[in-house]
This record gives sequence, C-alpha cells and structure tokens, in this order.
Amino acid sequence: MKAYQELSREELLSLKAELEKEYEDAKGKGLKLDMSRGKPSIAQLDLARGFFDVLTSESDMKDESGVDVRNYGALDGIPEAKRLMADIMGVPVDNVIVCGNASLFIMYDTISRSVTHGVMGSTPWCKLDKVKFLCPVPGYDRHFAITEHFGIEMINIPMTPQGPDMDLVEKLVSEDASIKGIWCVPKYSNPQGYTYSDETVRRFAALKPAAEDFRIYWDNAYAVHDLYDNGGDNLLEIFTECEKTGNTDMVFEFCSSSKISLAGAGIAAVAASRANLDFMKKSMTIQTIGYDKVNQLRHTRYFKDIDGIREHMRKHAELLRPKFEAVLAVLDRELGGLGIGTWTRPNGGYFISFNTMEGCAKAIVAKCREAGVVLTGAGATFPYGKDPEDSNIRIAPSFPTPEEMAMTTDLFVLCVKLVSIEKLLNA
Amino acid sequence: MKAYQELSREELLSLKAELEKEYEDAKGKGLKLDMSRGKPSIAQLDLARGFFDVLTSESDMKDESGVDVRNYGALDGIPEAKRLMADIMGVPVDNVIVCGNASLFIMYDTISRSVTHGVMGSTPWCKLDKVKFLCPVPGYDRHFAITEHFGIEMINIPMTPQGPDMDLVEKLVSEDASIKGIWCVPKYSNPQGYTYSDETVRRFAALKPAAEDFRIYWDNAYAVHDLYDNGGDNLLEIFTECEKTGNTDMVFEFCSSSKISLAGAGIAAVAASRANLDFMKKSMTIQTIGYDKVNQLRHTRYFKDIDGIREHMRKHAELLRPKFEAVLAVLDRELGGLGIGTWTRPNGGYFISFNTMEGCAKAIVAKCREAGVVLTGAGATFPYGKDPEDSNIRIAPSFPTPEEMAMTTDLFVLCVKLVSIEKLLNA
Repeated sequence: MKAYQELSREELLSLKAELEKEYEDAKGKGLKLDMSRGKPSIAQLDLARGFFDVLTSESDMKDESGVDVRNYGALDGIPEAKRLMADIMGVPVDNVIVCGNASLFIMYDTISRSVTHGVMGSTPWCKLDKVKFLCPVPGYDRHFAITEHFGIEMINIPMTPQGPDMDLVEKLVSEDASIKGIWCVPKYSNPQGYTYSDETVRRFAALKPAAEDFRIYWDNAYAVHDLYDNGGDNLLEIFTECEKTGNTDMVFEFCSSSKISLAGAGIAAVAASRANLDFMKKSMTIQTIGYDKVNQLRHTRYFKDIDGIREHMRKHAELLRPKFEAVLAVLDRELGGLGIGTWTRPNGGYFISFNTMEGCAKAIVAKCREAGVVLTGAGATFPYGKDPEDSNIRIAPSFPTPEEMAMTTDLFVLCVKLVSIEKLLNA
Repeated sequence: MKAYQELSREELLSLKAELEKEYEDAKGKGLKLDMSRGKPSIAQLDLARGFFDVLTSESDMKDESGVDVRNYGALDGIPEAKRLMADIMGVPVDNVIVCGNASLFIMYDTISRSVTHGVMGSTPWCKLDKVKFLCPVPGYDRHFAITEHFGIEMINIPMTPQGPDMDLVEKLVSEDASIKGIWCVPKYSNPQGYTYSDETVRRFAALKPAAEDFRIYWDNAYAVHDLYDNGGDNLLEIFTECEKTGNTDMVFEFCSSSKISLAGAGIAAVAASRANLDFMKKSMTIQTIGYDKVNQLRHTRYFKDIDGIREHMRKHAELLRPKFEAVLAVLDRELGGLGIGTWTRPNGGYFISFNTMEGCAKAIVAKCREAGVVLTGAGATFPYGKDPEDSNIRIAPSFPTPEEMAMTTDLFVLCVKLVSIEKLLNA
C-alpha cells in the first residue's frame, strides 16, 4: 500500500470518486448500529444466567459472619464480598468497602465528599478558589464529566503506551497545591487498552504532591478483563508500592463487577488506606444504613472466589476476542500503510483507540453516523469534550456481533479514507 | 392508681425499695434485647421469601418497554417500577425516579447536591454564610444527621398530633430566606406515629417561603404501613394540594420498599416536579449509568401492583400489631394514671413515642441498658442529639418477638418508675 500522503492530487481525486460510490452503497444498506459505549452484549449477560438461581426462597440468607443479608446493617459490605472484591484488585480485605451497583457512583461520591468535607481533614474543596485535576488523555469521558460537574479545572496529560507522561505528572503535582487528583485507568486503559508499566506505577507511588489532599483515583475497571488466556497484562499492585514509599494514603482504587456479572446489577468496591476509609465512613454512615447485601451474597455464592471470577472472565474473553480481532483485521487490511490512521492492539479491556490525521475525527464520526453507525462522539475522550487535535476516536466492539462489528468497521475505514482524502486535498 | 406526684416521701421511698429489688431481679435474668432501631423482624423478612424465586435463569429479563434490565441504562428506572413507587406515594408516574436500595441515600444526595450545585439554579448552599432547616421534634435521627453533617443549622419545631406547629413553620419560612427546608415524616411520623391532618398538609402546600430554594423534604416512609386493616390513617397527597397553590416545585417526596420487601435490598424512589427532576438528573447522569434495574424488575414481578403491595402489607401488620399491642398493654397497665409518662397509640409505622417527666429520659435509657435492653439513645430524636427537656424515648417494637417485647416493656416501665421516683425525691 502506498501512503495517501504520497498520492498525487489526481490519484486522490480518482480514489475519492470510487470511495464515494462505495459510501453511497453503504448508506443504502440502512445500517443501524451503536458502538458508542462499552456495553456488554446480550451473549455476555447470558453467561451469568445461573446467577439468578443461586438465591432462592429456600436459601440460607446469612453471610459468613451470620448477618442476615436481607436486613439493615453491615455498612461496609459482607465479609465474603469484601474478600472477593479485594482479590479482584489484589489488595488486603481490610482496605475494602463494598458498595452499590456502580463504581462510577463511588467515584462521584468521593469527589462530592471532597468538595463538601475535604479529604481526611483538609479544607473542603468548595472553600478553595481553584481545584485542578490531571487527566491523562485520551481518557474516560465519565471521569472527566464528574470533575467538570464540580467545577474542577482539568489539565490534559499525554498518554503513552507505558501510562501517563510521568515527567509532567511529577512536575505538576509537586509544584501546584491546587492539583488534588489524577484520573487513572491503569490496566487496559479506556480507550487505548494500555497497561501502566511497573516504572509508571512506582513513579505514581513515589509522587510528592504539594497538596496533602492530593489523591490518585485509580479506576481499576478492567482488572480481570483479559482478552487472551495468557495471564494478560500485568499491573503492579499500587498499595504495595505505596507502602514502600510511605504513601498509602495517596490512593483511592475503584472496581466493580459490572463487566463481570451484570452491567446493570453488579457490585462495586473502593480500596483505600484505613485512614481514608475511616474518613469516608464518617459520611457513609450518614448516607446509608448499608448497601444491597443480598446482591453481594448472590455474587459470592455464584462466583465463590477469584478463581470462579477468572473462569467466568475466560468466557467473556471468548465472546469479546473475535470482535476485537474482527475490528483489527479490517483496520490492518484496509488502512495498513496508508498513513491516515493508527490504532492500538489491546490485550484486554473494552476499547480500541484510533487516531486519525489531525482534524479528521469529528468528520469521520459524523460520516459514520450519516450511514447509520453511531460511534463515541469525537472529543468525548478529552476533558470538556475538546480533543485539541481532533484526532481520537474510541471504538467499542463489545455490543455488536462479530459480523456486525466487521460491517461497522468496513464502514468506519471507508469514512476514514474519505475524510482523510478530503483533508489532504484541502491541505 | 395514684399519681406518683401525690405520694408522700415515705410512700415513694418504700415503693423505691420494692422496685429496686424487682430491678435487681430483672438484671439477674441476663436479658439481651435491642429495640433501638426500626428493624424488621426475621419473620417479616421471611414474608418475602418468594421474592427470590421470581427471577430465574429462565426468566425474560426485559422490562415492559423492552429494555434488558441486566445491562446499562434507564437512568430513572424501569417503567413498571416507576408506576409501582408512584402508586405507593399516590403521585403521577412522570414525577418519579426510582433509584437504589435506600431512600435515605436519595435524601442525603438531594442535600449534598443542593450544597454543591444549589436547587434549580439557586446559589449552591456551600457559598452561603448560613443555611437552616426546620426540624419537627421529636423526629427521625437520620434526617437530623444529614443536615448536621453538612453544617446546616437546625431549628426545633414542636410536633402536635396534627403535625408540626404550622403557625411557627409559616412564620419562620416566610421571614427567613436562610431556611431552605423542613424534614417531614407526614404519615405515621417517626417516632410518634402521628399522621399530618388535612389542614396541616394544605398549610404546607400554601407556604410562601422567603427562599426560592426552600423545599419540603416529605419522607413518606410509612405510606402503606398500616397496623390495622381499616384503611389506616389518611394522608392528603401533597402534590395535588401544591397544584392548587401553584407550589409544585416546593416538594421532594421520598419512599422506599425497605420495610415492604427487604430492609437491605429494597428499591427507593423520589417524587418531584418535572423542573426539580430535570435539575436532579443533570447530576444523576454524571453520577451513575443507572441503578439496579434487576432488583426493580424483581419487585414489580413479585408485587405486580399496588394491590399486591397492600396485600403484602397486611401480612406485615399481622406480625407487627401484636408487638405494638404488647407494648401498649404493659404501658397502660403499669403506668396508667401514675403521671410519670405519656405515650402515643399509632395506627401504623414503626414506633411508639414515650415522654417521661422532664429530665428522666437519659437515666431511663441508661437503666434499661444496665439490665440488658438497648433502646434508641435518649436525645436521638432531636437535632444534635439534644432533647431540651430530656424526656423523649423512642420505642421500636418491630424486631423482638411479642414475648420479648412484653418482657422488654416490663423492664422499661420498671425503669421509668424508678427514675421518676428518684426525680421526685430529689425535686
């Protein structure tokens, strides 16, 4: 393949005419596909069908400490659920609180509490003139939405395949006391599927923040979400590293079973130092008498332990892998060597990150939508929805079937080509 | 019976000696009972055993609009759950959002959001010098804990059998723009079991608050929680009344199924005007992708509709009624005419409110605890835990058996007598 940049104007125009015809044909097919969100497919949800038989009218409803899960109480979760979530994150069980059905909610709550009550005795952020967060980009739109909602200024940090640009993170965090946090998806990052390197994790653990209430918001959303049965990417456990540096208070880790059991009815957890958890519980005890322990028990009776989780995740991988591979096959075949796009090849997680030539992402997403395929909005992977280079597109292969995924990607590459040619012609 | 106040010093001393012996005997029994919280009994939880069979691996997992409840989405709840909760509150379905497992949580969240983001465009409360709430007393300790947690100044409003002292409420609310809300449990109030009269509800609906962001926090926790099968107390539906006065934006109503299905795994809802809900959703959409819809579906498949709820509540009543009656029988028999206590006779809800002579509540609760019976802490029914007259004690009969309840009340009246005599002797 010859890179588009090396084609003559005439070659580009002729190619454009050809592709436009293809595009009109594609539009005629009346596609109606949504790959905008990292949503499990029906087949994935069906993997947990047995989940609904595990508690029946005959079941013993007590957790292993003897507490009746149907009644009030057990604010921080039942012991076996704490152990399960601790094992998913690889942290000690005493550092875990199990909450409701979504880790997003715990993250929102953690920020909200910091705004109204500060962090472990610090000044509430609502009393400060300026609060800033570091945001590795491209990143997870819902993280950025939380900080934007609370009026927190977001600073872009470039991502690399090893994780965020740590030179920049170290510099900013140590210099600016108004920087109170950084959003991280350390394993199979959203949207690239990158896993932070050991060095990156160690540099995180060794941060010397100017703000005492600076925290790393470590969203370990894809801790056990490998696509290949080779053990997957390895992420260093950050609390262990923080113990070495005396920084254990610096991390909030989040995870959930949304993409393990059910996206609408999983259980979520937070891990932190005892001092952080104690502070958190002062609000939590006002907020609720306890989260849904029946669902916690349902999870532990069904999955039993981390081995049960891993076994279940292999089934998810079998469903997800062909979709990722379908996308990558089309991208390789159709765009390889053309110089108009780069993409990631994740070993896990829910997304592939695609970078167009500068200034093409919005137009490509619009062109796909015109032909019936909804992608994540261009810019969504950046704070304030603003991709400074207008080049990142998140591909979410989980929901469609592999066949739909291939069709969708065919359309996608067509749109990438067309928009790129227009860009080159107008350059 | 002769009132204690009419007894001579010698009579009191002799009675005291006798009661002290009884108390020592009681202590010897090694009682260990907790009636501190309005916690359903195991028998009540068992009423919903069939709840665990309603969704199985074979079930259709779609709500009536066709949404798969196992996946992300449906932020404001599935249609049938909205309808069920709307019917419990007696409000239109379009005014309802169904959330997670606890209405307490929605209340906390509503206050928290007002602190950080204001109410429908008003100044966030964290930017104000002073925010105040009216608190009908005695009232629900967890309400007061929320407002205290956010540094909101609480003003006591005396309760009457018809509801809060509305003269005072009207005066304060219309004069003081820093008053942003009032906590209400309008039906079977916690702890008295009073139901607000029609006139009280109408006066609430007609309030003319100085603050645009003043809201009535209408915690309809016991909407269908009658003890007697005669239809129960009747509470006027407040939104209907507010429509007449043009005040529909002034109310947030809360309810949950915690004391209908399961205390640990119910569903909760909020009702409000569209304008309030729209504002609320701006935060909610950042906070979560959706609450646990599987549990919502489980509820609607099990109870079907409001008639199913009412039928189920009759079974609760059959379990609760004997406990309330056991308490009242002992109180009547042992304290009637003695002039050392008054108590309420609720037709529903979870509590009986007991008033001692001034300055006796703390000592009675302590004396009960010494003999193995834990009551709600004296003062807990007041903001900041401070009962100005030290006289209110909340009795929660739901958790113990009727026999335990009778034993507990025997001890309770003994402690009331002893502490009252000491008080009279020291007067």
